[in-house]
Amino acid sequence: MSFNTFGKLFRFTTWGESHGPAIGCVVDGCPPNINLSEKDIQIELNKRKPGQSKFVTQRKEKDQVEILSGVFEGKTTGAPISMIIFNEDTRSRDYETIKNKFRPGHADFTYFKKYGIRDYRGGGRQSARETASRVAAGAIAKTVLIKLLGKKFNITGGITQIGPLMINQAHWNDREIRKNHFFCPDKETVPVWEQYLLDIRKAGNSCGAIIELRARGVPVGLGAPIYSKLDQDIASGLMSINAVKGVNIGAGMNAASLTGDTNSDQIRTKNGKIQFQSNHAGGILGGISTGQEIVVSFAVKPTSSILKSRDTIDTKGKNTKISVHGRHDPCVGIRAVPIGEAMLACILLDHLMMHKAQCEN
Amino acid sequence: MSFNTFGKLFRFTTWGESHGPAIGCVVDGCPPNINLSEKDIQIELNKRKPGQSKFVTQRKEKDQVEILSGVFEGKTTGAPISMIIFNEDTRSRDYETIKNKFRPGHADFTYFKKYGIRDYRGGGRQSARETASRVAAGAIAKTVLIKLLGKKFNITGGITQIGPLMINQAHWNDREIRKNHFFCPDKETVPVWEQYLLDIRKAGNSCGAIIELRARGVPVGLGAPIYSKLDQDIASGLMSINAVKGVNIGAGMNAASLTGDTNSDQIRTKNGKIQFQSNHAGGILGGISTGQEIVVSFAVKPTSSILKSRDTIDTKGKNTKISVHGRHDPCVGIRAVPIGEAMLACILLDHLMMHKAQCEN
Amino acid sequence: MSFNTFGKLFRFTTWGESHGPAIGCVVDGCPPNINLSEKDIQIELNKRKPGQSKFVTQRKEKDQVEILSGVFEGKTTGAPISMIIFNEDTRSRDYETIKNKFRPGHADFTYFKKYGIRDYRGGGRQSARETASRVAAGAIAKTVLIKLLGKKFNITGGITQIGPLMINQAHWNDREIRKNHFFCPDKETVPVWEQYLLDIRKAGNSCGAIIELRARGVPVGLGAPIYSKLDQDIASGLMSINAVKGVNIGAGMNAASLTGDTNSDQIRTKNGKIQFQSNHAGGILGGISTGQEIVVSFAVKPTSSILKSRDTIDTKGKNTKISVHGRHDPCVGIRAVPIGEAMLACILLDHLMMHKAQCEN
Amino acid sequence: MSFNTFGKLFRFTTWGESHGPAIGCVVDGCPPNINLSEKDIQIELNKRKPGQSKFVTQRKEKDQVEILSGVFEGKTTGAPISMIIFNEDTRSRDYETIKNKFRPGHADFTYFKKYGIRDYRGGGRQSARETASRVAAGAIAKTVLIKLLGKKFNITGGITQIGPLMINQAHWNDREIRKNHFFCPDKETVPVWEQYLLDIRKAGNSCGAIIELRARGVPVGLGAPIYSKLDQDIASGLMSINAVKGVNIGAGMNAASLTGDTNSDQIRTKNGKIQFQSNHAGGILGGISTGQEIVVSFAVKPTSSILKSRDTIDTKGKNTKISVHGRHDPCVGIRAVPIGEAMLACILLDHLMMHKAQCEN
Repeated sequence: MSFNTFGKLFRFTTWGESHGPAIGCVVDGCPPNINLSEKDIQIELNKRKPGQSKFVTQRKEKDQVEILSGVFEGKTTGAPISMIIFNEDTRSRDYETIKNKFRPGHADFTYFKKYGIRDYRGGGRQSARETASRVAAGAIAKTVLIKLLGKKFNITGGITQIGPLMINQAHWNDREIRKNHFFCPDKETVPVWEQYLLDIRKAGNSCGAIIELRARGVPVGLGAPIYSKLDQDIASGLMSINAVKGVNIGAGMNAASLTGDTNSDQIRTKNGKIQFQSNHAGGILGGISTGQEIVVSFAVKPTSSILKSRDTIDTKGKNTKISVHGRHDPCVGIRAVPIGEAMLACILLDHLMMHKAQCEN
Repeated sequence: MSFNTFGKLFRFTTWGESHGPAIGCVVDGCPPNINLSEKDIQIELNKRKPGQSKFVTQRKEKDQVEILSGVFEGKTTGAPISMIIFNEDTRSRDYETIKNKFRPGHADFTYFKKYGIRDYRGGGRQSARETASRVAAGAIAKTVLIKLLGKKFNITGGITQIGPLMINQAHWNDREIRKNHFFCPDKETVPVWEQYLLDIRKAGNSCGAIIELRARGVPVGLGAPIYSKLDQDIASGLMSINAVKGVNIGAGMNAASLTGDTNSDQIRTKNGKIQFQSNHAGGILGGISTGQEIVVSFAVKPTSSILKSRDTIDTKGKNTKISVHGRHDPCVGIRAVPIGEAMLACILLDHLMMHKAQCEN
Repeated sequence: MSFNTFGKLFRFTTWGESHGPAIGCVVDGCPPNINLSEKDIQIELNKRKPGQSKFVTQRKEKDQVEILSGVFEGKTTGAPISMIIFNEDTRSRDYETIKNKFRPGHADFTYFKKYGIRDYRGGGRQSARETASRVAAGAIAKTVLIKLLGKKFNITGGITQIGPLMINQAHWNDREIRKNHFFCPDKETVPVWEQYLLDIRKAGNSCGAIIELRARGVPVGLGAPIYSKLDQDIASGLMSINAVKGVNIGAGMNAASLTGDTNSDQIRTKNGKIQFQSNHAGGILGGISTGQEIVVSFAVKPTSSILKSRDTIDTKGKNTKISVHGRHDPCVGIRAVPIGEAMLACILLDHLMMHKAQCEN
Repeated sequence: MSFNTFGKLFRFTTWGESHGPAIGCVVDGCPPNINLSEKDIQIELNKRKPGQSKFVTQRKEKDQVEILSGVFEGKTTGAPISMIIFNEDTRSRDYETIKNKFRPGHADFTYFKKYGIRDYRGGGRQSARETASRVAAGAIAKTVLIKLLGKKFNITGGITQIGPLMINQAHWNDREIRKNHFFCPDKETVPVWEQYLLDIRKAGNSCGAIIELRARGVPVGLGAPIYSKLDQDIASGLMSINAVKGVNIGAGMNAASLTGDTNSDQIRTKNGKIQFQSNHAGGILGGISTGQEIVVSFAVKPTSSILKSRDTIDTKGKNTKISVHGRHDPCVGIRAVPIGEAMLACILLDHLMMHKAQCEN
């Protein structure tokens, strides 16, 4: 039961609004005696930071994290880790003109109806700025996972589709991902997307994206059969990210079109090592990890803040028009890659801890 | 934190194995003074019951529910409602031949690796038989929701795709759904699916399906912005159903291909009534219901128990072959319709209760 | 968040009313591969069973437990363990005459006001009959703890006070406890209590009691510093037992009268073994076990169902008199011993699992 | 499941160490549209603040709270309220000499054994400094409760015993409480305690205390019958406060000595108003509030940091002596009054919200 907390044993609670003094995060349940510094967290935050290319919002935020508790002499103590990021580039005046209108596709309308009050500056609590806190929590989870599982463990996210344009999955190359502005694992797709996004922005419009996450080195046995299924928690975690509208595990929605003999991954032993002959399951069977690569993907809808004029109503219920100026990502999906990675890291650590609690005697 | 419990305020805990003496469910947090009888629950259970057509498993289970607590003189008392369904047609000998082999696509392998022990009879706890308990809980949730929200509230599920064959969405007709064996809302698709399924079964194979759920009469304001998003909890609930591999909210994965001007639903007031011009959001913005119809869909993978011989290993790690006999659904997705409805009902009631707790003064 | 569930990782959910068809319990999170049979549970249930001496209620209940799930071939599987106890000796007619009156000291009044409906038969859900379910859950916890911690682990409860009559603490002898009807560890106090209780019953009155629990072989390090303190969870668990009004950890309320030099237990090492020089802390410092014996006690108020006529009101708010006939314990505290033991066992296992999750790498 | 979070629907998560840069608190689930300012919180914090008389620690902390989120234009928004208090007077050097020794009665030993690492400065996370965060959360709860229940609602705490010296309960006078340094409701006891404490301090020793809390204007029906009993949650909340060793509800431990006819509070209606003839129950029956005054008390052990030399061991397990210098309260119980009030306020609001969720249709 928690509106602003995620996780079961490794838990984080986030707080803060887009244009308030700061945002932050409290991580609870972190194992003790793990080396941790602000630098470990900053590296991940920098991947998500705005203003890094012309394809994302030009808001300038250093997103500099401070650890306020839970770390002593460079090591976690088992106490809650409180992190804070001060907001800097908050141009609230951008929002004065639209403070009484509901931006279509945004949560302006639903917040107002639910709470009867709304911090309209930059979307307030509904802003994707909150996701910086998740990335900070995820950085801690990654650090702990590498300590517990070893260097063979890693999580890699990449974008596989922008608007209607997909990569060639056969071209996926981890090393390409950090070389371009789109977390694109397929070198040949980069210029195609670049042109597409320039056109989209020029038209005062926006587009969606699909992100794929791959986790390697995850041991067999994480998850739980019924209501703490690993894939269930991944679906929950990814769907909690702003603007996400769909989540696939392995073959995902496409599993519907497959037949049983194609879809169910056959198993072989070779030199004492278990090998699945395919991975339609995305590394999860019955809610429990198989030891294969975990492969999941999620769709981010097009940015709702667009220049194009749109029909809407105001807070008094009168019909009006709106055109959203300000500094917005033409494709918010791009910056969702480190966020997805962070959520997956937190979920995997959570399940590793739950597994230890119940099954390691 | 709960392996076998779902929900926050309206919670249910399920227990039981496929071939144990019984399965059951404890519903906690149910509002008091609601008329409730075993008949209300049986009606929903009968929709999911096996053996009702040649397209589902021929296992004969009456699935007769008994209420053991929480109801007094025909009304809920606020105390936990315990329900039990005795297992009847348990032919455990069907499983003797495969008890030491891992069926591809099943959770046999992961359960064994996680727990070091496994009730192999009919899949034990991993069996979809558990979903009868969810349907029972969902029946209670529906009853309460209709009491609280009125008759305008309803949830309707239908199948929109079997294997690669989709319905024509424009033909969706609620009344058709109960007239055929496939929960198919499009009359013209019924014979097409019928032939397809006969062929699939004849080939000793199986196929997947996509289920769509629609909830009408849901008030604006249910949900919570960050980690109790309504769509997040729906994704969690649907992904927790056996064999589900993908969840879409509104436009879902397709939102990635849309542009911002198409995807974000414009708003108008007409005669004092707020109307969205489209529903790509699926009735949820920022994790909170808009008051529109809630539209979600999920994909069920093809039944993993197939006659076709497949490669696998045994519990000692040796390579072997497996061919699964017994009474299996060629398309488990069909019986997922009432399960999806039940999960959605539970989630909506849970959020209605949370909303009352925080926002109704 | 759970009205009828106790615990975090090792959790149990109870259900059932005093005069319904059955009561029961679902234990979730139990480690797998632990030998467990109905006999292990029955032994504990028999300690709490009514009708065993003239000093407790003469209701005849066999309290025979059946395991419905979660155990396969004599071992736990990691799946939820559902247990059921059918009610047998339910003389609901005993309650007809008082169904519209609120018994002073009982929850009749508060249930009715809270829910607007009440199963008055035997107190319904408010009956201490629910505690049989706790004892069943506790029996499982004990079994697991002995497996994980070894034979040196044990929990012993005894009564230290009945009415105003205390034992001599220096006489405490574990072996005496099972030799009398009062769980009395001090042989010399037995006849004194016997006479006192006979007098109390003859007077149509009742009395209270204090129960002390001792857990030995608990490792250092269980608990958590702030809101999962071991003593906090013990206080929560014991106060959740019907009729309990006070909980002490170690010196308890008496700690107020002590000075710092007396109260804080000094520490010494002897032959490499850490030894506290006293145990005013009750084996818990800062919410975490010290490795010493854990010593806690709790007070049970006098049975509220007494023959003596008392002032009360009826459900319509009119003044009336009540005299409670039926079969009641003159001192309900006596049967609270196995209940307290059960709660403590569940809490200790829960914390052992949490400790493994966070601190064992 | 939460190491550093308290509450179910109205929840707060605290973080921070005694000598870190700051401490703080995130309150989640707060109802929206409630007037709230830093001043409302500061008033409560000032009651607990150190350095206010010679009877409490001379550490100088302004304990100035800043709200970082969740409040917009003077009103709560329903988003999490993050509060921060910067630490100022942190003389860590005081702790250098004892950093490798375990102070008897403190959690030094158990933290070190549990986590293998420990922030020894001022007790780190184990310091009672954490309780400032609870007071801040409680101030919000009080503000909300007064809004929801009206001015008739209030919580008053006072000290009823210091060392072995009790007040005369018949002299209890709310107005006296704020007039002295001891939250003493009995004017005549003040000089007695004053002399006693001066002597205790002079002797380099310390003493314990008992605090009583009274809540008036609490409606009938708050709580839940089994594992969310109101008294259970109060016991949990109060026992989670540093140094608390015992909790009583109403008659508490003394209930054991009473007989049924005395203890069970008789009920009368007078002019249509329900009146209990006594309040041994402390305003709670069966875990649910009766509408009477809620009366609970708890014992705080003597401060463990004393000048007197004591036996202990060091982190390497060697025998040694310790004498704790620094600025310590001779009776930490005194400052526990506002902390207890805060916990009670949070628990009552939590239960009010739960009641609305389940029982208000």
